Amino acid sequence: MRYKAIIAYDGKDFAGFQSQENQRTVQAEIEKVLTRLNSHEPVILQGSGRTDSGVHALAQVIHFDLKGVARDLERLRFALDTQTPEDIAVHSVEQVADDWHARFEPHEKIYEYLLENGRVRSPFKRHYQAFFRYRLDEKPMQEAMARLIGTHDFTGFTASGSSVDDKVRTITRAELIKTGEDSYKFIFRGNGFLYKQVRNMVGTVLKIGNGRMPVEQIDKILESKNRDLAGPTAAAEGLYLREVIYDK
Amino acid sequence: MRYKAIIAYDGKDFAGFQSQENQRTVQAEIEKVLTRLNSHEPVILQGSGRTDSGVHALAQVIHFDLKGVARDLERLRFALDTQTPEDIAVHSVEQVADDWHARFEPHEKIYEYLLENGRVRSPFKRHYQAFFRYRLDEKPMQEAMARLIGTHDFTGFTASGSSVDDKVRTITRAELIKTGEDSYKFIFRGNGFLYKQVRNMVGTVLKIGNGRMPVEQIDKILESKNRDLAGPTAAAEGLYLREVIYDK
Repeated sequence: MRYKAIIAYDGKDFAGFQSQENQRTVQAEIEKVLTRLNSHEPVILQGSGRTDSGVHALAQVIHFDLKGVARDLERLRFALDTQTPEDIAVHSVEQVADDWHARFEPHEKIYEYLLENGRVRSPFKRHYQAFFRYRLDEKPMQEAMARLIGTHDFTGFTASGSSVDDKVRTITRAELIKTGEDSYKFIFRGNGFLYKQVRNMVGTVLKIGNGRMPVEQIDKILESKNRDLAGPTAAAEGLYLREVIYDK
Repeated sequence: MRYKAIIAYDGKDFAGFQSQENQRTVQAEIEKVLTRLNSHEPVILQGSGRTDSGVHALAQVIHFDLKGVARDLERLRFALDTQTPEDIAVHSVEQVADDWHARFEPHEKIYEYLLENGRVRSPFKRHYQAFFRYRLDEKPMQEAMARLIGTHDFTGFTASGSSVDDKVRTITRAELIKTGEDSYKFIFRGNGFLYKQVRNMVGTVLKIGNGRMPVEQIDKILESKNRDLAGPTAAAEGLYLREVIYDK
């Protein structure tokens, strides 16, 4: 039987979502519990995509197969939620078709990036939002965000060494919200994001907001595909995978 | 010169506020920096009171003396804020009279206790609010909170082994606010709180909210001064020293 689950995790103490030898990962921690629940036969789970080291998820989607009869879904959810470490939460479990696939099923993703722009960094948010001590002007940041919307080759915003060939992606929403006197939320929705793309876009928008880069450079980065023209990669602790939205 | 500072700290990785040998404490971390700023002559700071291991502060007040001429206050604040570890923040520094004392100057304190009462514990809040998985009825909790207001001998709500003789304290505000579908904030204001008093009051109110203790037991605990009649000590991670309010 195949199951789909919606999970949240605090990325702080994980070397990312995907399993890597000798590293603490979200996938490995959940697979340990799934294997116990599967009479100790190994279970490999699939996520909708990876998240990097230190990046959080509010609603990552995974799927996995368990042998035997259909499980009681709330009991399965409770077992996964309480048997995984406390930096992983399991919000829901449902049964899906045997060929349903968290990654290959067409979907869009929403990422959020939380930023504190105050004078004093909150000790309580230091792992849960990024901190930028310097001046930020909202207007050029809003203009820069608007220029990211659309179908573009995002090569200039991905980390070098990425193994994906086709770097054309569509961003349908790029919104900057002032959530408080000293805080911002960046929201990106799209059909896929390249390695470190969101953090590179945020780092570039911050450089523009700080007046050290003109708004038009967004277009130049997209046209030239030149990573060197973009801003630095924004810190991982501000980034959240907010939602995975499957077609229909 | 004497200075007063308002500081915040994430209590998670501290063995409380007050210095203890071979333990990481807020006081010791700040004193290390103050001593550097005082030409390496040791500085002892005074807080408005202690907070226990794991308890947070949004606005703890301290005072300390630095030799030499009056310092530039924003430079002093910035030095303290940036040279202390990132789980301590320094919000303000001002100069005060040489006999001003953070603890002995008459004051009231406000404590807040944050509680999540959901089905799934948020990974992001696990160190910053307490979690209670079981049913809570708001009405009896509100009634219990109201009975705590006033001048009482709070012996029944303090931990045994407390060294304070006079256990009469006045609570001027005890309020329960439903801050979300699954979350509560308890607010207590008073002229002083005994060791573990707030967490014992919260633990008792939760037991009442869960239907395992009648509301009237609050009065019995106050009258009998019997700690065994009260509920368990609520977890440290929900508790915040919110404000220290000095007279005039």
